[in-house]
Amino acid sequence: MSDLKPKLDAAGVNALMRRAFPESGQDGLPQVMSVAPGRVRVMRPYGPGMLRPGEVISGPVLMALADTAAYALVLAHVGDQLMAVTSSLTVNFLRGCKPADLYAEAEMLRLGRRNAVCEVRLWTEGPERLAAQATVTYALPQP
Amino acid sequence: MSDLKPKLDAAGVNALMRRAFPESGQDGLPQVMSVAPGRVRVMRPYGPGMLRPGEVISGPVLMALADTAAYALVLAHVGDQLMAVTSSLTVNFLRGCKPADLYAEAEMLRLGRRNAVCEVRLWTEGPERLAAQATVTYALPQP
Amino acid sequence: MSDLKPKLDAAGVNALMRRAFPESGQDGLPQVMSVAPGRVRVMRPYGPGMLRPGEVISGPVLMALADTAAYALVLAHVGDQLMAVTSSLTVNFLRGCKPADLYAEAEMLRLGRRNAVCEVRLWTEGPERLAAQATVTYALPQP
Amino acid sequence: MSDLKPKLDAAGVNALMRRAFPESGQDGLPQVMSVAPGRVRVMRPYGPGMLRPGEVISGPVLMALADTAAYALVLAHVGDQLMAVTSSLTVNFLRGCKPADLYAEAEMLRLGRRNAVCEVRLWTEGPERLAAQATVTYALPQP
Repeated sequence: MSDLKPKLDAAGVNALMRRAFPESGQDGLPQVMSVAPGRVRVMRPYGPGMLRPGEVISGPVLMALADTAAYALVLAHVGDQLMAVTSSLTVNFLRGCKPADLYAEAEMLRLGRRNAVCEVRLWTEGPERLAAQATVTYALPQP
Repeated sequence: MSDLKPKLDAAGVNALMRRAFPESGQDGLPQVMSVAPGRVRVMRPYGPGMLRPGEVISGPVLMALADTAAYALVLAHVGDQLMAVTSSLTVNFLRGCKPADLYAEAEMLRLGRRNAVCEVRLWTEGPERLAAQATVTYALPQP
Repeated sequence: MSDLKPKLDAAGVNALMRRAFPESGQDGLPQVMSVAPGRVRVMRPYGPGMLRPGEVISGPVLMALADTAAYALVLAHVGDQLMAVTSSLTVNFLRGCKPADLYAEAEMLRLGRRNAVCEVRLWTEGPERLAAQATVTYALPQP
Repeated sequence: MSDLKPKLDAAGVNALMRRAFPESGQDGLPQVMSVAPGRVRVMRPYGPGMLRPGEVISGPVLMALADTAAYALVLAHVGDQLMAVTSSLTVNFLRGCKPADLYAEAEMLRLGRRNAVCEVRLWTEGPERLAAQATVTYALPQP
């Protein structure tokens, strides 16, 4: 969907997200690394409390980052719309996610007036060894 | 699926889950309230850090509790299988989730040898005003 | 969601659906069997062409009936809105679906102004031995 | 996932699929157009009976092709395993699907011993204007 034009760069999205989640600073708010037409990449630094039994990164941590990556993607393309809300999320866990900095790349599949549908892929080992894949739908605030 | 017979009661599942997530105590680990054939109810007490912009309970908190409720349901019916892992989760957010103690009821749709498929409904206002609904698939460890 | 009041009964929904899909008559259009507050039951008579290898009813037949059941549920509660369109569908196949008349029961989880979210359960052997379960989201036409 | 090596080419997969669905010939069985490491492209020729109200290709037609594309992708990479069965499918409908030959491209996200998880994108207007996107999980027969 290369006809999409971002309205914000990575720094702009990071600033918006810090405003939306002021309390999240202490435990490593995910950072937007890059913004491109129809895409963003975010990263959450590895930290304690992210693991589940089996010494892999837990499902809720992966789901939260999938949601955040989609939110960042929406903000990058529609601008200051903090009230966009997730309406659905489907995640497939593909393999145990080894402990390390966690990356997510989100791609816009469809940006309409009412909704945005995003695909998100997550990994720690590398983008060719995905830990999880998600599709996330956001409802956009109506004027 | 009333032909299912739980192997553990609520106290037994709570004990297993405390063993699986020893660090989670400090911020209010969800409690299993009741276990019945094919069903469990869990509750996470309301606490700080559960909100998102708009003063509603955040999506990741709802997703995490949906996953926990399905995990508790699996443990209740297969016993001490801490290594069961989520293979997929789909959640639909139905309305803003007002701040209060968060309940989840999970129902077993299918318990096979390899997988368990669970439906989960979540609310704070009451079970007739759902905040979210999820389906969760767990992969069971193979002997 | 017992506060929902259907606007149409089973005969009314069947009439609307025949109007929406005039060509479907020849191969056994599903019939709405009953309408209740927040619920409908539909049935597709068993017929040739519904099977896949292994002599079970095929996934696409189950998905199509899940979609139809959700559509019937929406029509029953909002009336003559033929242009409601499916926006997403998630289905879990739970066990092989033995060849017989195929039933689906759809329940409204949330009926908003913009969307309806429905849960659908499908079976041939009986409602306590589900063949599949789906969640279906419909976008409602805006005035 | 370029480390995947297909075991069958397009002609090989087409031959297998004709064997699996011998009755489907008459109404335009989808054709596998190409097979590459981790990917296949399939096409279903436009024909009558594919439309829904609004003169767009119906959801069940899109879902059936998503399922077929994932099945073709699995067959291409594991060989003659006709008894692979869909275990779940999530589809997002992104825009009305204009009547024309319908294309689907499926990508393998994870091929394990027990399961395969595939992403599928569908279009008639072009791959940069998707009509739908799906994730499909197949359970593989166990030796």
